[in-house]
Amino acid sequence: MDTLNSPRELAVWKAAHARCAFVPTMGNLHAGHVSLVDKARLTGLPVIASIFVNPLQFGAGEDFERYPRTFEQDCEQLKAAGCHAVFAPSVEDMYPQPQAYFVEPPELANELCGQYRPGHFRGMLTVVLKLFNMVQPAIAAFGKKDYQQLALIRGMTAQMNLPIEILAGETTRAEDGLALSSRNGYLSTLERKEAPRLYHCLKQIADALSSGRTDFEELETQALGTLYQHNWKVDYVSIRRPDLAPAINEGSAFVILGAAHLGNTRLIDNVEVPAIKAAAK
Amino acid sequence: MDTLNSPRELAVWKAAHARCAFVPTMGNLHAGHVSLVDKARLTGLPVIASIFVNPLQFGAGEDFERYPRTFEQDCEQLKAAGCHAVFAPSVEDMYPQPQAYFVEPPELANELCGQYRPGHFRGMLTVVLKLFNMVQPAIAAFGKKDYQQLALIRGMTAQMNLPIEILAGETTRAEDGLALSSRNGYLSTLERKEAPRLYHCLKQIADALSSGRTDFEELETQALGTLYQHNWKVDYVSIRRPDLAPAINEGSAFVILGAAHLGNTRLIDNVEVPAIKAAAK
Repeated sequence: MDTLNSPRELAVWKAAHARCAFVPTMGNLHAGHVSLVDKARLTGLPVIASIFVNPLQFGAGEDFERYPRTFEQDCEQLKAAGCHAVFAPSVEDMYPQPQAYFVEPPELANELCGQYRPGHFRGMLTVVLKLFNMVQPAIAAFGKKDYQQLALIRGMTAQMNLPIEILAGETTRAEDGLALSSRNGYLSTLERKEAPRLYHCLKQIADALSSGRTDFEELETQALGTLYQHNWKVDYVSIRRPDLAPAINEGSAFVILGAAHLGNTRLIDNVEVPAIKAAAK
Repeated sequence: MDTLNSPRELAVWKAAHARCAFVPTMGNLHAGHVSLVDKARLTGLPVIASIFVNPLQFGAGEDFERYPRTFEQDCEQLKAAGCHAVFAPSVEDMYPQPQAYFVEPPELANELCGQYRPGHFRGMLTVVLKLFNMVQPAIAAFGKKDYQQLALIRGMTAQMNLPIEILAGETTRAEDGLALSSRNGYLSTLERKEAPRLYHCLKQIADALSSGRTDFEELETQALGTLYQHNWKVDYVSIRRPDLAPAINEGSAFVILGAAHLGNTRLIDNVEVPAIKAAAK
């Protein structure tokens, strides 16, 4: 596996790998990231991952400083997964001058996680666009665990006419249902035991929707109650359509998204509900 | 010359012309545009021009509707200039959905012309980014007549890590000094006779700066006075550094920019002043 520590080294690699598949990450890799590399490898293209903890998408008081940096282990995992190259630029490489041009996202960026992380999606989209322009991949893979991020990246890719196919990877979960996340490492043993409840609450709503219930607010409120009872500080639980428009009272597909804090750790998750087939009614 | 009327036709052309030089225009071409095609041809790459009057960069009450559309003549000029292809998408091609993702420009976009055309540069940069992503040129050429536009495109290209070299073409002028512009066609015979005064006022400031004067405000005020006296409605006359930062009282290079209305027609122009050599003092 080639390790590319600067845009210059990336450019040399690109000269020999014009078409490639790209897996952008913030490092501290887990099986979820590895599944994205697997998915990218299935394209038959050389796969390049990036590791960059992007200061632009962290707000004041968020965990930019303490976000886990585990470069050596990450490289081992990428190599074992058959990744062809890893691009690991410095903050100075990505922002030689203070960034003054940004991707201005739609209103969706101020909803759900955006309501609680002002500027997050603007910073995320900006760095993703920069990385896309540097790597110029034919294909890029993102995880569904960050569902809103994926929706915004899809939107930007389409509306900015980027010639890139976006692949979505399913959320990888621990045996007890907890979605794998770098931030799980912040959890205490007790918190880790409690953490799967977020998923199970979302799953319960999914089952209710699948069985035909359409009392969205009631379902959301029930989940909130359960989480509050177990000492979660909930940012939101929200039933939406797959494009993240508000849920409507019709037999359509849904996604249920949630974000909540356990102690000092903010966890997010989501569960998709396929459209109920008319025949099944 | 190939005429490409849709993104699909562009994609087919691109498959055979991976590396190309690009001249984006809003049509109604004049010798200034032709000089950009000439400049682009010197790269040795196949040259593609685009013709697209971008609604996103026109404000309410501006001249989007009446902006001159002269497609047949434009194609003849491009063909005669040795252009290899013209890309002329429809508004629906460029905006199949209402645009919801934008390029958010720096504060500079609210100064000079930006102060009088809110949202103009945001709309311009957004369509340029979209066109760049569709055409994926190795090189793109823009005229210095739109100096602030050129500065913002250079900034976006650098900060968004676009792998595109930006070429700047000198302003083409009529014999009496008037900068060529599609909007000159709006001028009455009398206005056309008066129009070169904007250039001559800016040139007068340039000469004063070259001779060592540094009383920027006084020079600007004198030019305003002259223009007002001749019934211009002036938006601004501004002495700046070449990067459009405020002029400083040192022997550096300058650019003097002006925008003013003659009747219903808004004209812009600028004059560069190279750095005064220490030896010449």
